[in-house]
Amino acid sequence: MAPYVPGAQVDAKSRVIKLNTNENAYPPSGQVAKALANFDTSPLRRYCDPMASNFAEIAAKINDVPAGWILPGNGSDDLIVMISRACLGPGKRAVWPGPTFGFYFTQAIIESAECVEVPFGDNFALPTDDLIAADGAVTFVANPNSPSGTAATNDELARLAENLTGLLVIDEAYCDFAGTTAIKLAETYDNVIVLRTLSKGYALAGLRLGYAIANPGLIAGLVKTKAIYNVNSISAALGAAALADQDYKNETAAKIIASRQELSRSLKELGFSVLDSKANFLLAGVPGGKAKQLADDLKARSILVRYFEHPRICTSLRITVGTENEIEELIDALRELS
Amino acid sequence: MAPYVPGAQVDAKSRVIKLNTNENAYPPSGQVAKALANFDTSPLRRYCDPMASNFAEIAAKINDVPAGWILPGNGSDDLIVMISRACLGPGKRAVWPGPTFGFYFTQAIIESAECVEVPFGDNFALPTDDLIAADGAVTFVANPNSPSGTAATNDELARLAENLTGLLVIDEAYCDFAGTTAIKLAETYDNVIVLRTLSKGYALAGLRLGYAIANPGLIAGLVKTKAIYNVNSISAALGAAALADQDYKNETAAKIIASRQELSRSLKELGFSVLDSKANFLLAGVPGGKAKQLADDLKARSILVRYFEHPRICTSLRITVGTENEIEELIDALRELS
Repeated sequence: MAPYVPGAQVDAKSRVIKLNTNENAYPPSGQVAKALANFDTSPLRRYCDPMASNFAEIAAKINDVPAGWILPGNGSDDLIVMISRACLGPGKRAVWPGPTFGFYFTQAIIESAECVEVPFGDNFALPTDDLIAADGAVTFVANPNSPSGTAATNDELARLAENLTGLLVIDEAYCDFAGTTAIKLAETYDNVIVLRTLSKGYALAGLRLGYAIANPGLIAGLVKTKAIYNVNSISAALGAAALADQDYKNETAAKIIASRQELSRSLKELGFSVLDSKANFLLAGVPGGKAKQLADDLKARSILVRYFEHPRICTSLRITVGTENEIEELIDALRELS
Repeated sequence: MAPYVPGAQVDAKSRVIKLNTNENAYPPSGQVAKALANFDTSPLRRYCDPMASNFAEIAAKINDVPAGWILPGNGSDDLIVMISRACLGPGKRAVWPGPTFGFYFTQAIIESAECVEVPFGDNFALPTDDLIAADGAVTFVANPNSPSGTAATNDELARLAENLTGLLVIDEAYCDFAGTTAIKLAETYDNVIVLRTLSKGYALAGLRLGYAIANPGLIAGLVKTKAIYNVNSISAALGAAALADQDYKNETAAKIIASRQELSRSLKELGFSVLDSKANFLLAGVPGGKAKQLADDLKARSILVRYFEHPRICTSLRITVGTENEIEELIDALRELS
């Protein structure tokens, strides 16, 4: 099997405009730098808290759930690994609407599970009935979805949760740009796990922090496949500081949402077809359809966007919503290339 | 199945003498604090290097191997998980000499592998012939071993590597207190992986950093089961600073080795039988054999040591080599309790 291949990374000091891996356009909260400055390295000789309790407590508080409903992970990847190891295996079926985040497939394959990708409907509508019929041991739904940016309603997700016999994992990596969450479904349906990350809304992709929200019974099951000390002390401390600064997160998210509108408008003017996005990126159909060529042309101008070979989206590009300047430079380049 | 249960953790500010989880008696290098002070949090919005290349390069340099022979992990636990997912499964056999680190068993069980614990010989001699006969898809050897502290010679390990058809994982978590390493075996035998951690010798248990040393073919296999971005940017930067300060690591290791001799001498005077240890802890047979009772009595005096229920060692206690003061307080308490 082939490993999951992420979007290209670049040297932090390079002048590249990086709109290919959906990182936040803005730096993390100043509270994160403050927490770092106050961090004493001496206690690092000790193991960290296996459950990252201080981080979990604040995650519980901002989401208005009891602390026992939170399981921190070394990025939400770590939680997807735990879920896959706990619930998938030979003869078990992993299901997702596609195209979506490729890591679900990678993990299901490692577990020798049967993989079923149910195609999204028109305009990436959630194919709820087909997902129910596919009857997965685990059904992964990225909501908002990547690379489409589209989001299903809680009513649709509730119907899915209600009718699945297996686990429903609602991956809310991009929910900070959507303004909605399915947490209530985790409270209503005992087969629902909601995943969150600090990589996107909190601009902490390099820190590796995510968490699951689920009832304590499901959490106890996942803990069995958790590495002993999965979240290091510094990430836990800095992540807690970031979560505590909701104002900053909300302000930057609002800026990105405004820029998303602006970028969408500009792309449409240039003839792109743009899906309605609830995330910090847009899936844009390239006029004429030569998406790979356009991605290469942009790369030659030091602008990185993401091209996927998946037949459903191979005439589109996924473009992260950058800063206002980055968007201007992108639009200028696209205008010259068109 | 039950999850792996680590030794108890305590509040960093408590007055407990913590000799139960083999943490380093001394704080990490001052270079770690310096690296933290110089760390800029702004680039945390970007994903970290999936291969933690800067950290891997210095790990390669200090071990005198090419950089392509190093795979960093979120603690060596993360590497044990990768190995287990890559090489174990139903019908595959995981083998280790026991008693040893319980995490091998936990991971093998998660992978539904067959588990074979081959008993160590007298004085914890490596049962090489029986390990060869057990014919594991993966054979895990902690060297020095925990909880015994004993170490096999490279000649014995070479004979094992040569005669196994499966993978031989030599977990060198405690090698900084042993003065020997089996790296040469990874260069000689293409089925050998050496694991290292910064938790013990570098006093960075809370940072979660380890790495595998193996030929690039084996590394490529493990990468397939690696989470995308498994080592966060801060841990990688601080770990690189710690690795670069070999003098500090060697000085603290020398102090701990001297204290180990002193502790061993004092315990023997009190009637304990003490195995020859190459690690930062001792396995001490309790006079009269009531090890659980003694651990409880010490706990009542705020001194934590580790008791294991394993029949081979249930009359012994594993005691981490603390600072000189901690050792004095422990010996005073043992004298009063005897």
